Amino acid sequence: MEKPIPGKIVAQHNSRESCWIVVHGQVYDVTEFLDEHPGGRKIILKYAGKDATQEYEPIHPPNAIVDNLPPDKHLGPVEEGTVDKVEVKMTDQEKARLRRVEARPPLSEILNLHDFEAIARQIMPEKAWAYYSSAADDEITSRENHAAFHRIWFRPRILRDVTNVDWSTTILGHPSSMPIYVTATALGKLGHPDGELNLTRAAARHGIIQMIPTLSSCSFDELVDAAQPGQAQFFQLYVNKDRAITKRIVQHAEKRNIKALFITVDAPQLGRREKDMRMTFDAADPHEIGKSGGGQVDRSRGAAKAITGFIDPGLKWADIPWFKSITKVPIVLKGVQTWEDALEAYDQNLAGVVLSNHGGRQLDFARSGIEVLVEVTEKLKEKRGITFPNNRFQLFVDGGVRRATDVLKAVALGATAVGIGRPFLYAFSTYGVDGVDHALQILRDEFEMNLRLLGSQTIKDVVPAMVDASNIHTHFVPVPQDQLYNTNYENMQHARLRDIKVKTKL
Amino acid sequence: MEKPIPGKIVAQHNSRESCWIVVHGQVYDVTEFLDEHPGGRKIILKYAGKDATQEYEPIHPPNAIVDNLPPDKHLGPVEEGTVDKVEVKMTDQEKARLRRVEARPPLSEILNLHDFEAIARQIMPEKAWAYYSSAADDEITSRENHAAFHRIWFRPRILRDVTNVDWSTTILGHPSSMPIYVTATALGKLGHPDGELNLTRAAARHGIIQMIPTLSSCSFDELVDAAQPGQAQFFQLYVNKDRAITKRIVQHAEKRNIKALFITVDAPQLGRREKDMRMTFDAADPHEIGKSGGGQVDRSRGAAKAITGFIDPGLKWADIPWFKSITKVPIVLKGVQTWEDALEAYDQNLAGVVLSNHGGRQLDFARSGIEVLVEVTEKLKEKRGITFPNNRFQLFVDGGVRRATDVLKAVALGATAVGIGRPFLYAFSTYGVDGVDHALQILRDEFEMNLRLLGSQTIKDVVPAMVDASNIHTHFVPVPQDQLYNTNYENMQHARLRDIKVKTKL
Amino acid sequence: MEKPIPGKIVAQHNSRESCWIVVHGQVYDVTEFLDEHPGGRKIILKYAGKDATQEYEPIHPPNAIVDNLPPDKHLGPVEEGTVDKVEVKMTDQEKARLRRVEARPPLSEILNLHDFEAIARQIMPEKAWAYYSSAADDEITSRENHAAFHRIWFRPRILRDVTNVDWSTTILGHPSSMPIYVTATALGKLGHPDGELNLTRAAARHGIIQMIPTLSSCSFDELVDAAQPGQAQFFQLYVNKDRAITKRIVQHAEKRNIKALFITVDAPQLGRREKDMRMTFDAADPHEIGKSGGGQVDRSRGAAKAITGFIDPGLKWADIPWFKSITKVPIVLKGVQTWEDALEAYDQNLAGVVLSNHGGRQLDFARSGIEVLVEVTEKLKEKRGITFPNNRFQLFVDGGVRRATDVLKAVALGATAVGIGRPFLYAFSTYGVDGVDHALQILRDEFEMNLRLLGSQTIKDVVPAMVDASNIHTHFVPVPQDQLYNTNYENMQHARLRDIKVKTKL
Amino acid sequence: MEKPIPGKIVAQHNSRESCWIVVHGQVYDVTEFLDEHPGGRKIILKYAGKDATQEYEPIHPPNAIVDNLPPDKHLGPVEEGTVDKVEVKMTDQEKARLRRVEARPPLSEILNLHDFEAIARQIMPEKAWAYYSSAADDEITSRENHAAFHRIWFRPRILRDVTNVDWSTTILGHPSSMPIYVTATALGKLGHPDGELNLTRAAARHGIIQMIPTLSSCSFDELVDAAQPGQAQFFQLYVNKDRAITKRIVQHAEKRNIKALFITVDAPQLGRREKDMRMTFDAADPHEIGKSGGGQVDRSRGAAKAITGFIDPGLKWADIPWFKSITKVPIVLKGVQTWEDALEAYDQNLAGVVLSNHGGRQLDFARSGIEVLVEVTEKLKEKRGITFPNNRFQLFVDGGVRRATDVLKAVALGATAVGIGRPFLYAFSTYGVDGVDHALQILRDEFEMNLRLLGSQTIKDVVPAMVDASNIHTHFVPVPQDQLYNTNYENMQHARLRDIKVKTKL
Repeated sequence: MEKPIPGKIVAQHNSRESCWIVVHGQVYDVTEFLDEHPGGRKIILKYAGKDATQEYEPIHPPNAIVDNLPPDKHLGPVEEGTVDKVEVKMTDQEKARLRRVEARPPLSEILNLHDFEAIARQIMPEKAWAYYSSAADDEITSRENHAAFHRIWFRPRILRDVTNVDWSTTILGHPSSMPIYVTATALGKLGHPDGELNLTRAAARHGIIQMIPTLSSCSFDELVDAAQPGQAQFFQLYVNKDRAITKRIVQHAEKRNIKALFITVDAPQLGRREKDMRMTFDAADPHEIGKSGGGQVDRSRGAAKAITGFIDPGLKWADIPWFKSITKVPIVLKGVQTWEDALEAYDQNLAGVVLSNHGGRQLDFARSGIEVLVEVTEKLKEKRGITFPNNRFQLFVDGGVRRATDVLKAVALGATAVGIGRPFLYAFSTYGVDGVDHALQILRDEFEMNLRLLGSQTIKDVVPAMVDASNIHTHFVPVPQDQLYNTNYENMQHARLRDIKVKTKL
Repeated sequence: MEKPIPGKIVAQHNSRESCWIVVHGQVYDVTEFLDEHPGGRKIILKYAGKDATQEYEPIHPPNAIVDNLPPDKHLGPVEEGTVDKVEVKMTDQEKARLRRVEARPPLSEILNLHDFEAIARQIMPEKAWAYYSSAADDEITSRENHAAFHRIWFRPRILRDVTNVDWSTTILGHPSSMPIYVTATALGKLGHPDGELNLTRAAARHGIIQMIPTLSSCSFDELVDAAQPGQAQFFQLYVNKDRAITKRIVQHAEKRNIKALFITVDAPQLGRREKDMRMTFDAADPHEIGKSGGGQVDRSRGAAKAITGFIDPGLKWADIPWFKSITKVPIVLKGVQTWEDALEAYDQNLAGVVLSNHGGRQLDFARSGIEVLVEVTEKLKEKRGITFPNNRFQLFVDGGVRRATDVLKAVALGATAVGIGRPFLYAFSTYGVDGVDHALQILRDEFEMNLRLLGSQTIKDVVPAMVDASNIHTHFVPVPQDQLYNTNYENMQHARLRDIKVKTKL
Repeated sequence: MEKPIPGKIVAQHNSRESCWIVVHGQVYDVTEFLDEHPGGRKIILKYAGKDATQEYEPIHPPNAIVDNLPPDKHLGPVEEGTVDKVEVKMTDQEKARLRRVEARPPLSEILNLHDFEAIARQIMPEKAWAYYSSAADDEITSRENHAAFHRIWFRPRILRDVTNVDWSTTILGHPSSMPIYVTATALGKLGHPDGELNLTRAAARHGIIQMIPTLSSCSFDELVDAAQPGQAQFFQLYVNKDRAITKRIVQHAEKRNIKALFITVDAPQLGRREKDMRMTFDAADPHEIGKSGGGQVDRSRGAAKAITGFIDPGLKWADIPWFKSITKVPIVLKGVQTWEDALEAYDQNLAGVVLSNHGGRQLDFARSGIEVLVEVTEKLKEKRGITFPNNRFQLFVDGGVRRATDVLKAVALGATAVGIGRPFLYAFSTYGVDGVDHALQILRDEFEMNLRLLGSQTIKDVVPAMVDASNIHTHFVPVPQDQLYNTNYENMQHARLRDIKVKTKL
Repeated sequence: MEKPIPGKIVAQHNSRESCWIVVHGQVYDVTEFLDEHPGGRKIILKYAGKDATQEYEPIHPPNAIVDNLPPDKHLGPVEEGTVDKVEVKMTDQEKARLRRVEARPPLSEILNLHDFEAIARQIMPEKAWAYYSSAADDEITSRENHAAFHRIWFRPRILRDVTNVDWSTTILGHPSSMPIYVTATALGKLGHPDGELNLTRAAARHGIIQMIPTLSSCSFDELVDAAQPGQAQFFQLYVNKDRAITKRIVQHAEKRNIKALFITVDAPQLGRREKDMRMTFDAADPHEIGKSGGGQVDRSRGAAKAITGFIDPGLKWADIPWFKSITKVPIVLKGVQTWEDALEAYDQNLAGVVLSNHGGRQLDFARSGIEVLVEVTEKLKEKRGITFPNNRFQLFVDGGVRRATDVLKAVALGATAVGIGRPFLYAFSTYGVDGVDHALQILRDEFEMNLRLLGSQTIKDVVPAMVDASNIHTHFVPVPQDQLYNTNYENMQHARLRDIKVKTKL
């Protein structure tokens, strides 16, 4: 075992010329890495010669530092108790936030998934909120994901015996208590110290499946170890430029009994998320105006960019057979956005596709998964004669889901199940595992009620004729307002109380 | 006759261990019922050992307590004048509300049905307003009910002699002075001490038909007794799990000369009405944060849940012949939402259907009745060759009606009559029976005017060619706003007065 | 000549039992008329025994009092200088209004027709503004009239020599400097002491045609007398229940050389205009709450109702031959709203129709004239093989016009000319005849510019292929907002100035 | 050389009767020109007898004064240092603006093209902002230009190797690093002292093509001289009524190696831009109310009108051969708005067309270029069997572009490249050449990212099947709001923090 390095020595390497930092009790020389750091060198220099663990922890996946530094830059353990931590003074803003945390309403007052987001927005640290909530460009697709569900309406049936209703299903052969799964989202510790473990535990309680992300804050093995006996888990894979690493990861996942591999195919490069990017300017120097001239744009892109440099933009259809050769785990493509690609996946005998645009975080003006679903079922029926839901080739949708009604619309249109991401992040960011548990209980209640109101005893009875999706492809922008006409118009008034101040609108 | 129980004795049973309450002069032991109470045990415990009549009265149908407790828990009469009432201190909020009640404008200033709602919103107790106005989930369907009428436009005809116009009609063979009826709504006493009697009386004055609800605050017999000689009444039925009870109710209704039975088929379970639910948290304990953990969600659902546990979710088409066997009264299904179910009702020789989504209080994203009407008339013509209005099988619509023009659109599209609910509730909640009377007078005036302007002498002359309903099936959500572009845009300005404060926009 | 009645005598008849008033120097006994007065008896009693001329003048057509009272109630002239006028104290509100009148911007700052309305809204007396601006029910049709033009887009042509452009045309054979006319509107003196004379004079200056209204504040002969030699005028006719009166009016108009008769066919009864109606409550007694009970609704309907009781709701197609028998003046129907009625007018050999919904003041949800125009030209081509513009049968449109582009859209779609009403009312209400003149000059400039930009040398070159009207029949209401989702969404932010208050949005 | 004129002499000619001014050291007698000055005589009289250079400079193209005055009014040079400048007192408003200029954020905080506009709006002089940002009439088309892109959605493809992506292209045979060009916009010095030179320099840095405007503030030769060796430039031509001038200009441009001639065909007359016009009233005399009577409308139209009197409204298709006869430079028509005219241009063997409505500054309700593009490719395929992009006949689009996604939509639909105007004006108005450089860098980054996310390696791979433009022709205006219903509706509320002020919405 190496001899620990005294904190005093570390503290001397506190400049751009020689910059050491301590993370999880280990000393690293990051001098040469400074300019490559996707989050910018400034944030590292703040911790030069000191312990950076607290800042590092929630926004880097496990082993990020080891994976990104050459072995000789790993200098060995620090002598315990000898290294300075950076003292972070609590700002007034942070104190106010903590008061808001204390003021959370009891869980019983959280009536729907929106409520978690409303609380999270007020009590999460701004950076964490920005990372979770932000999306690409003008965030049109992100909002469209939700809006698209509002273009689908129900055709409920009556006078069917719905005394007993059952909303359980099977996903890729594994039972699920509801037609949903926890989809993969990165950096869970930004929202809660237990990170994705909150999801593993709540999924166990409710008998649903968690998809473990490549970019989890908790390590893959932690999340698998936390599963209950018989609890199924999927794994979401970002494919590394170094295929040996990918092979190792996949085969490890298979060994740990992962039930399906969801390969992300919509992120050859991370989208620009401007809300996230604006966060990085908080500490910027006010005297820099105009300094960054031609060609030297500061390309720091917030938390997102910091963690994704390894993803391979060269991934292609021709790589699919290789994946099949290294694992027997069923493979699903996550991020399919056209019927043409869904057809190709079907023809390559994959287990399914997730119709998704990555929560609106990649290409703005990509269509919603629920819209693509309509096109995919139509065309695959036309081209290959198959109907959905279909066990041989399963369709999933994610993005914008807030209500069980959203899920049931997808199910009626042929989806096997629907992935839910952000709402669960907000649930654990506000109330930890109990939050996620409560979120699932709300969905459970909504499924029970809505199955009854649809006149369906089981998920199989939720059929295409129960929805009108004829408006799904409409993307309308109203003609710009005639401001002069409209401001001249004097609104109609109600009858008014006499001489009394009206109750202000709640 | 039993010996009255002294209040002192009652007062001793004031805990969770032994809980007696007094309602309408009778003592009940509700100890074992505490955990079953749909409104939660807390509210009952507040009245333990005391007289709960005042709280109980407006939110329970008559006999609710007798129907829900075993006979041996009915302990007998209380000794008069010996029992404590719970003193309710008048809050400042309540005092302000009562001042607003005093400030109501004279009825002559109420120009349309919207006006009643505007006043009601300001003067009703919050709980009552929440119960009446709330709807399911995000209340999309509730508002769509009204919005859908705005997608239908008139094609009025000219140069027809409209000196004399007549907007009377017959509904299921019974004359009505207008093509509307008072539809069934629950808990009338929440809005006014006379409850549904206000409706019975005003209906008499105007020669229209009232549909008596199963869940009225006034008893069925009270409402029938209040009818004038020759005043027709319908009855809305929630079917009980115990069919013997249902049979008794139906046959009693027939005996009391009810003209039609409207069986509610869209409520196998009550919808979640979150505005109503939020009301129950008013008195909640601030120290409960996070307490309600896995699986133990507080499912209290406001006033709605408290009154509907008996409704049978197992009701099915196969039960219809049984209904025909126990009564000769014409049967109409209330809550039909597809042409398929309307066709089935027709084929089963029922008298008609109400195309309704329960005022948007059940399944959110169910379509409006007026939209379903277009589909039903099209398909029944295609499948059975019948046209509407049709005496053998009558179509009704309810939901979202505020103007006579709304009604006339439904009539043009084939409806026999249209049910109106909430506007009359708001009318009596603000001005009692005179309010409902005034509301009907407004409708009367609007019918007269609009028949003339349509070029129709009678309701029969209001034909399909008088409306353009070609946009009825459009459910569009605008593309999410481009916030950055829009906030950069500088609005056009009008010419401005010189150096003078402009009159602020009213 | 009668002996004048002393004011002292008149002053004694100042009660409900005996009520005399003085108007224009004549004494009338209106005791028996009190309850028939469409504006209510209260307003008359205020002037009982006094001179009511000032109040009477602007809201009654000439001779209204003579026409409505039996001859024996006309008591003769009052003795000059002996009668009390009602002293009207100037309120603070009125003083503030007069200051705003003073603060009008110079006419050169009025850049478009909207600007007149913006100024009028601030400087007109509230009652006058309410009468001019109000429309039926929820004023949906009124605003739709303008909105419909926004669904029509141009297809301008290039590289045509537009050095000289000419936007003059002929209307029913009479030259007009632009494809517009001043349409008939009532009660011009509400806005300006010269009333409709402002329109006559400005029309003369610009070579356009004025349609004289039946309900003008100025008398018909005044307006005809004011015309310049050769200045063409039309006449709008409300048909009286007493056809002898109508015959007299029509034949007088013909004698005075009126060029066309526009018979209003969309107003068998006046629409309910609630903004106008609310005005009448200003002086209402606060102690009347609830007094007006069953059946006794106060039906006062503001200024509109006061002047229209004579209109015949029995007018019908069968009356058309009679009109042709009493006059040779070309007859146009004003207020046609379907192709069926336009076809009938064509088949009855009338000179044309105005596709109009009375400025949205009659049947709410009637379609706009511009929308009906599309249907009419399509169907008349299909049924009778005729195209438009067509000299034998001319189509006119009115409602919602604010820009020359609006007019050119109608022209491209087949209209001969377009009627403009409210904008000219606002123009003279703010600047008298110079206002109307300026409004016409603005339109003139807009026509010149837009003809050039369309690539049209003359009005004849403005052809159907220059517009895309394919969206004209769409009447969409967006799906109701998802309030919970939308309020959770955090809007995108622009880059911000450092530590400086931003210029507030103008 | 002429003898300089002493300032004292000049100063004597300071009235309407004799008005001399000094511009760039030369004395001009403008007495007879006063009434012809498109900006009005008032602004000139302010400088009578004085040096007007500072006011004149940014809003007149080079040589405007020489071109507009007869030679004998050019009196010769002024004696240096002897002439009065008009002292312009700095207003508080101007001081506040300069403070805002100082507070600009560093360029690194400018994340998108919208950000430049947000800063420009706050720091530009109001007149300059009004001239750049204003558009025709109600500015509907101006906003529609941007909105139309939002009706087009992507169909991105997956699993294509996008390691290396290349977004360069060629435009009319000349290489461009991106499928965009700097389109022609007038009066660059309003925003920055270097005017259009900022564009020339930034275009050089990024390898894109600048289109030099006829109405540049910098002279044509300055802009050509500033180009780097090999830097391609286009020239935008307003055709003069005097074709000799046009011939001279075109042949000079050809000699200076201009690569293409873009003839503006959508501006036979300048559009009315009311925001710009309102600016001219700042200094107006408050006592002029009502003075401008019949026919004497002040037609001053802000900066736009001042510079465009020479443009020939007589330009026509028959002139095209003449252009071909005077130059070999490829000719493109700028401002084509229908397929019919695009076809004509194709048939006349022109090099291409710009589908454009002049940034919404000409005919309001003209359709967006991107919408016309869809029609043009469809019809030219149908009529001539050609597809796009097409080297023989290239299609360009401009108007409303803010994101690389906008550009890629146009490219997918067949455009060779897209012109960007205002965003670059705002970029140099806020940060000079570095601003434009940064804007281009942002676009570069967006192209890289979006090509990857679309699954396209090159611009050629951006094909029609990658977009859904099926909603492009929809121009919908929602049915006017039901104000009474909507204001009665009580919005849904989220769960709330306890007794704590919520963070206000950012």
